[in-house]
Amino acid sequence: MLNFSFQNPTRVHFGENQMHVIAKEIPKDAKVLLAYGGGSIKGNGVYDQVVAALSEHTFFEFSGIEPNPSYDTLMKAQSIISQENVDYILAVGGGSVVDGAKFIAAAALFEGDEPWDILSKGASFTQALPIGAVLTLPATGSESNGNSVVTRNGDKLSFSSPIVRPEFAVLDPSVTLSLSDRQISNGVVDAFVHVMEQYLTYSVNGKVQDRFSEGLLQTLIEDGPKALNAPTKDDLDVRANIMWSATMALNGLIGAGVPGDWSTHMIGHELTGEFGIDHARTLSIVLPAVMKVQRTQKQGKLVQYAERVWGLTEGDDEARIDQAIAKTEAFFQQMGVPTRLSDIDLGESDIDTLVNRLEQHGMTALGEHGDITLDVSRKILQQAV
Amino acid sequence: MLNFSFQNPTRVHFGENQMHVIAKEIPKDAKVLLAYGGGSIKGNGVYDQVVAALSEHTFFEFSGIEPNPSYDTLMKAQSIISQENVDYILAVGGGSVVDGAKFIAAAALFEGDEPWDILSKGASFTQALPIGAVLTLPATGSESNGNSVVTRNGDKLSFSSPIVRPEFAVLDPSVTLSLSDRQISNGVVDAFVHVMEQYLTYSVNGKVQDRFSEGLLQTLIEDGPKALNAPTKDDLDVRANIMWSATMALNGLIGAGVPGDWSTHMIGHELTGEFGIDHARTLSIVLPAVMKVQRTQKQGKLVQYAERVWGLTEGDDEARIDQAIAKTEAFFQQMGVPTRLSDIDLGESDIDTLVNRLEQHGMTALGEHGDITLDVSRKILQQAV
Repeated sequence: MLNFSFQNPTRVHFGENQMHVIAKEIPKDAKVLLAYGGGSIKGNGVYDQVVAALSEHTFFEFSGIEPNPSYDTLMKAQSIISQENVDYILAVGGGSVVDGAKFIAAAALFEGDEPWDILSKGASFTQALPIGAVLTLPATGSESNGNSVVTRNGDKLSFSSPIVRPEFAVLDPSVTLSLSDRQISNGVVDAFVHVMEQYLTYSVNGKVQDRFSEGLLQTLIEDGPKALNAPTKDDLDVRANIMWSATMALNGLIGAGVPGDWSTHMIGHELTGEFGIDHARTLSIVLPAVMKVQRTQKQGKLVQYAERVWGLTEGDDEARIDQAIAKTEAFFQQMGVPTRLSDIDLGESDIDTLVNRLEQHGMTALGEHGDITLDVSRKILQQAV
Repeated sequence: MLNFSFQNPTRVHFGENQMHVIAKEIPKDAKVLLAYGGGSIKGNGVYDQVVAALSEHTFFEFSGIEPNPSYDTLMKAQSIISQENVDYILAVGGGSVVDGAKFIAAAALFEGDEPWDILSKGASFTQALPIGAVLTLPATGSESNGNSVVTRNGDKLSFSSPIVRPEFAVLDPSVTLSLSDRQISNGVVDAFVHVMEQYLTYSVNGKVQDRFSEGLLQTLIEDGPKALNAPTKDDLDVRANIMWSATMALNGLIGAGVPGDWSTHMIGHELTGEFGIDHARTLSIVLPAVMKVQRTQKQGKLVQYAERVWGLTEGDDEARIDQAIAKTEAFFQQMGVPTRLSDIDLGESDIDTLVNRLEQHGMTALGEHGDITLDVSRKILQQAV
């Protein structure tokens, strides 16, 4: 096992009818910015519950945070914050809204030249407005981590800091019953790939981390499809298991003490940045190709994944790996997401553009060994055609 | 899944050569009480490392915290604390030292009549001195939870509060290489039973919690015996896996959203209180008897435990349960701990005493259903003869 330091102080309130905790979690005298997306929370009752919980607070609204939240949108929040002396951000939505709230919170107190520097130059910051989150779409884990991804002019860049980790998060699985199949499948696939990126590397004999990861993968494989199809589509336990898996997939725990390979996300970001593909649908295309191209480097873990996650015990190691990759692709297909560039009408001729973007963003040594160079990323994209 | 609120803000620093973090974790101007046990930390180098890390701090020592720490011992710390204006407690040792430090920290700022009321009457407290922990014996999980058990005149009582949760914990698995086999086996068995008490109840379809629990059980079953025998006895990964499992076993995570049955601990406490038996060695005697007596109530989970933890897929449910209980006892025996009252020279004639103690301590409705009455506890003890 590798050395690590781990802390996750976010208070998670999980289950139905937990929205009332917001009233106690946010200081009574806070001036709250209620940040949300396109307004779906007004259709599913979440907005009304949140507003009821804030009945004794002063709050202002900032809506319109889009998927892959844009810098320009988020910067618009700064004028309300300064005019109204906002000192608490309550994000109500999915990962994009929570990610956006983190950037808003850091930008509000940023002392450098331009808040974009946080993303483009890794400019450090020492303070941010406190954040709470009401999660409506289980996927990114943003509700209890310090990560944020923001897009500007097609550049999808990220930052991470414990300073913007939400102080609390309300996770009510019943809220997810109103999600579309596409939202659910995107969320399940995003969480699945988060786990894989912390698991499918090389063994450091971290048995707890491995088994926790395998448990999350198995849960998503079992319950992900159930959330799409009758009679289990409305089963609250199914929703709860997906929601808790997605949080645990990226709250820092399963990655503590083990290597990581974030190449799937990094390559996927370019597909979104260039072509506007849903984040999860880039991952389901890239991950199987990474498994194939990096098969030798990841052999030990691929065999373990085959045996423990998919129960594949027939044939030799290579046969098991073949089957495990096929099972992974079949799972993605079952979730209704693409597994090939051709599924989204892209192909060989788009690869140069994507590789150039990776180069521009400095993504020249990805993977747990840093051996996913631009050439290897090209092979991965070719494999994904 | 049941509703839950979960938070664990303890900063964990895991691995070799992490002791230096103490210097940064404790405020520079703090007056520190270095609390430890019988002095084993002076033989294994831990004391020297801690003192080196505290080279720029003012600190005082309080040693002699014994296993099952006694109220009278712990109260002796109060005079140093008031004389020297101690404002930070650094616990260096196993669960007993950390538990003791929690009581010392709460007692120092207790505003009621007598600190014993915290244990005997559940008296509330709103403040405590901050605590850090350097763990030398993986077992209780005390290094990142708010639980403490203190003994007075043979009464082994507990309290729990997030106020006494350590702010940080240093977990260096190399430190555990100097432990005796008895200490290792006690620690592994304590952690194993902690997991079982949050797992072996009834299903609420909490798949993440179940699989995390199963992963911890499997890790302890695999690596526990390796820490006792060559050639793996000195394998640092083995020690790391045991250490991280023990922390995860009782840091609140696997028990969030699922029922618990703490009857094994409660009945075991009376065996320690009356006869001075090592804590873990009471658990290894009581747990198999609880599994047998509560077999009907726990049937579903017992079958799941048999299949997933022990890989038992032959025979019908009852046969699998029989085998799983036998495997559990065999694991305990492999770890060198007793599984019968007769193994520790107790028997039928001691049961009245133990049941009377349970009655005195109000332990009349234990278990996930509250159906372990004094009569059922008697049956459990009879089963354990």
